[in-house]
Amino acid sequence: MRIDILTVLPELLESPLNQSILKRAQKKGLVEIYVHNIRDYTTDKHRQTDDYPFGGEAGMVMKIEPIYRCITKLKEERPYDEVIYTSPDGEMFNQKRANYFSTLNNIIILCGHYKGVDYRVREHLVTKEISIGDYVLTGGELAAAIITDSVVRVIPGAIGDEASALTDSFQDDLLAPPVYTRPAEFNGWKVPDVLLSGNFKEIAEWQERQALERTERLRPDLLHK
Amino acid sequence: MRIDILTVLPELLESPLNQSILKRAQKKGLVEIYVHNIRDYTTDKHRQTDDYPFGGEAGMVMKIEPIYRCITKLKEERPYDEVIYTSPDGEMFNQKRANYFSTLNNIIILCGHYKGVDYRVREHLVTKEISIGDYVLTGGELAAAIITDSVVRVIPGAIGDEASALTDSFQDDLLAPPVYTRPAEFNGWKVPDVLLSGNFKEIAEWQERQALERTERLRPDLLHK
Repeated sequence: MRIDILTVLPELLESPLNQSILKRAQKKGLVEIYVHNIRDYTTDKHRQTDDYPFGGEAGMVMKIEPIYRCITKLKEERPYDEVIYTSPDGEMFNQKRANYFSTLNNIIILCGHYKGVDYRVREHLVTKEISIGDYVLTGGELAAAIITDSVVRVIPGAIGDEASALTDSFQDDLLAPPVYTRPAEFNGWKVPDVLLSGNFKEIAEWQERQALERTERLRPDLLHK
Repeated sequence: MRIDILTVLPELLESPLNQSILKRAQKKGLVEIYVHNIRDYTTDKHRQTDDYPFGGEAGMVMKIEPIYRCITKLKEERPYDEVIYTSPDGEMFNQKRANYFSTLNNIIILCGHYKGVDYRVREHLVTKEISIGDYVLTGGELAAAIITDSVVRVIPGAIGDEASALTDSFQDDLLAPPVYTRPAEFNGWKVPDVLLSGNFKEIAEWQERQALERTERLRPDLLHK
């Protein structure tokens, strides 16, 4: 899989894309991640990527030309399955979308910044608008990092322990049960007896009951949809 | 405002916390952000922050002791309004919660990693569990960066243009209207005439209609709640 991220702030993505699972997945050749500075696709002497909005609203708008040039160049080199734009009014990102994106070959993620991109970018160049949640960020860079992390994580081989990913929250529409590790008692706070029992059937039943109970209490929408 | 972030992977947060708005807000003295390496609060010679889960599940669990020590030390130094744990089964983060957090003095954000923290941390040390969305990440570090970014962004003075933040999506339960900038025509794609008209009353009406229409079409749940 190949992920191309387009941004006016490539520095912001340096550490998130080069640590932990993402670092290992790139080393293993499971994913190639390229960050493109939109400024490199400007042609004016001030290398301007944004400009005042028509109509006199506050804030700055990302210009269409350099984005168009960058996407066009990438598309000339290979086909892309999706051109994703991170925006708070996009389709809500979730684990199913992460799983789906992880099956694609090549995707572009365009990071919005300032007041967002010229709307013509969204009408003519973007194929999918994705929101990672109902909150506004300084820019789409962290959203792109979130999408990249959750997508790469489910590529087979990316995390050491496949079984661990399968028991994560959301993969079966249940929240994960509580987990505990040593010591069995700390500060007077004890681990539930059943987990120390060595009876794996009882433990499995307890975990399933806990997962169901927690989901019913905290996220009933996941059970009753 | 002061934000203390507890993590086993401090390197991951380096670039997101030190660019753009977050960098400027710290320079202006509007927020102090401290990243604490949980490993520094271990006392064993292997500096172990995680261990196998009781009950034999796959994956590793973050130990309570170093987290307890770090939080206890911070609390001895000053009172904290919230100890936030980032977890996919927490309360859903949104703009209202971001606005609320921005009014607090001191908060701790504990980043989950691996299969998460020993559940006793959540029962006894954490005051609020927050999810940034229905997807699983490699760790809570990016979630902490998202929370920090959205919270700091709404502290008065953090972004240059206050009026811009007020017209963002969600602040009035409406999605933002489309924005355009120069050139007025690109590749045959034109900016709507009204925005070039100079008639600010008509422009404001068009923007409000667009915001309403886009919200009704893309996010009716925001209007009918």
